[in-house]
Amino acid sequence: MPTANSLVALLPATIPFVGPERLERENGGAFKARLGANECNFGCSPDAILAMDKAAREDVWKYSDPEAWELRQALAGHIGISMDELVVGPGIDNLLGLTVRIFSDTGDPIVTSAGAYPTFNYHVAGFGRRLVTVPYRDDKEDLDALAAVAERERAKIVYLSNPDNPMGTWWSGAAIEAFIDMLPDETLLILDEAYGELAPDGVRPSIDTGRRNVLRFRTFSKAYGLAGLRVGYLFGPADLCVHYHKVRDHFGVNVMAQQAAQAALADQKWLEQVSVQFEAARKHIAAVAAANGLVPLPSATNFVTIDCGRDGDYAMRVLKELNAREVFIRKPGAPGIDRCIRVSCGLPHELDYFEATLPEALKAAE
Amino acid sequence: MPTANSLVALLPATIPFVGPERLERENGGAFKARLGANECNFGCSPDAILAMDKAAREDVWKYSDPEAWELRQALAGHIGISMDELVVGPGIDNLLGLTVRIFSDTGDPIVTSAGAYPTFNYHVAGFGRRLVTVPYRDDKEDLDALAAVAERERAKIVYLSNPDNPMGTWWSGAAIEAFIDMLPDETLLILDEAYGELAPDGVRPSIDTGRRNVLRFRTFSKAYGLAGLRVGYLFGPADLCVHYHKVRDHFGVNVMAQQAAQAALADQKWLEQVSVQFEAARKHIAAVAAANGLVPLPSATNFVTIDCGRDGDYAMRVLKELNAREVFIRKPGAPGIDRCIRVSCGLPHELDYFEATLPEALKAAE
Repeated sequence: MPTANSLVALLPATIPFVGPERLERENGGAFKARLGANECNFGCSPDAILAMDKAAREDVWKYSDPEAWELRQALAGHIGISMDELVVGPGIDNLLGLTVRIFSDTGDPIVTSAGAYPTFNYHVAGFGRRLVTVPYRDDKEDLDALAAVAERERAKIVYLSNPDNPMGTWWSGAAIEAFIDMLPDETLLILDEAYGELAPDGVRPSIDTGRRNVLRFRTFSKAYGLAGLRVGYLFGPADLCVHYHKVRDHFGVNVMAQQAAQAALADQKWLEQVSVQFEAARKHIAAVAAANGLVPLPSATNFVTIDCGRDGDYAMRVLKELNAREVFIRKPGAPGIDRCIRVSCGLPHELDYFEATLPEALKAAE
Repeated sequence: MPTANSLVALLPATIPFVGPERLERENGGAFKARLGANECNFGCSPDAILAMDKAAREDVWKYSDPEAWELRQALAGHIGISMDELVVGPGIDNLLGLTVRIFSDTGDPIVTSAGAYPTFNYHVAGFGRRLVTVPYRDDKEDLDALAAVAERERAKIVYLSNPDNPMGTWWSGAAIEAFIDMLPDETLLILDEAYGELAPDGVRPSIDTGRRNVLRFRTFSKAYGLAGLRVGYLFGPADLCVHYHKVRDHFGVNVMAQQAAQAALADQKWLEQVSVQFEAARKHIAAVAAANGLVPLPSATNFVTIDCGRDGDYAMRVLKELNAREVFIRKPGAPGIDRCIRVSCGLPHELDYFEATLPEALKAAE
């Protein structure tokens, strides 16, 4: 019978993130607090809902515009770049896979922090590249070490998220710019700014298309509340962007995604008010952690990572006890940062439930 | 600066299908008849619209179930197979790319008919495989020649669509089964049944999971009217399906797609009535062709391919004259079949407009 090629044959069948839906099927019921996937539990702009209603009735039978022209035009205008400096895709996950596929070859070294985004690592393995990792330092990605390893390995690609997932920490835009200057010219920096809209001023470096080796990734899945629709984008030099059009799925950004994202982008007032909700939720989570003797890390994202103060096994027990009590959370997995759990912002009633449940979970985890 | 690898560097930046939206931007107005993309101009099931309304309000902020559990369960039940014999993906296009990636290696021969699905060829080129083509014969894919070339080349993959796009013709299920028996055991047959729901009885071979080297591809983009949502699936031996889970984008099948597809699948009565609409539209298109001295080919799909009776240049002029008159159609491109144009089923008023426009277009194309 047919066989997979030698690369794929050796890969594991895996899911970088087990879905809460699987846990719910196994638990036999829905979670009372969905605080594990860094979504926007506050929903999306009402304008985006109206756009979806219209698309459902008028447009969903059509293939989407393979050039996503109107959305790209709106995004380019919003950012202040030209349309050929921007690529839209069905989520950052998809764009990360294409980036690995395009800008590296079999066996090439690719650098990331140990414990950073698993889906990026999944694509690196999936295309047979060689992952080289650098430990977190003081719960932040270690810029000096990342640059040194990139230099030593002549890395094709370095992945950095700022603000960081899973730790919630961040570097200033100035520090990121200095980091870029340290990288070899031929090393591509994937700057994952999935949480960028939620970060304080000064965290995002200036838009500088003069940098020839940086692609910045953003999404409608986090602050904009459209994770289920799959729409992300990247921007940077046009002569890097052009390669995506050679290998992408042209109809991959669906009709709903294109139209809802455009409506969401136009409703910046909604983004402002949801940012206030996220801030209140972060404070709530941090207060709950502190009240239980745990240490919340500072966060520039839609989640708060909490130092449980012991080893990884203990933090895993805390996670499992919360999951067993219908609170869905996730946690960092790499040595050093695995002492933490990660709690996404949720609705007030979800955080109240988390608050009521955490003491029991901690007791059970002893 | 960073560079694409040697494979991607040499690929053209291309779109297998230029979208009607681009033509509309260039023409400065919308088409009056959208008859070029083999969509379902009759829309989708009202139950699917209700599902989308609900998802827009309740679920779209969540990441989709990466296992698409409920949809896979429904599809497996509908077909009468087990869930591990089925893979759901964001459209057949995406699944074709994964299939090339998984079941062949750089430089491996892959066989298809000259003028068959361009997006498949795009993925073959995109992964650096070697495309070997076989001419159509009597406006059908030439099963004997495809099998002979697969044997000669020791092809890793053979692509066949039945019913066929772009010709609309078909082989019986029995002929397809005999074709499978002719293929080398190690050659994977991609049996693209995108138009399968619209085919007469006997066109689809029996569901026989005993065949170890066949994957069958279906979609919600055609008869089900959900092209804009991106949801397709494949089914076949579980030990072939398992490889997709090693390399696919896990969140790629969006929330809307999963829920609307499930609702559409459950509404088989809607499928029955839309099939009647498609049949009436095929007859209308065929009658218009015949009334203008052209020869409509028999069709088991949602389009009718029309033999314009001269060479490819003439048929291209007919297409351009129709497009210039706000009728969007496409046409086969390969020598021999390029004498045809391809007209998708449309709403009665669209076909009336096509009927009124074709005589002028033919005159202008002289």
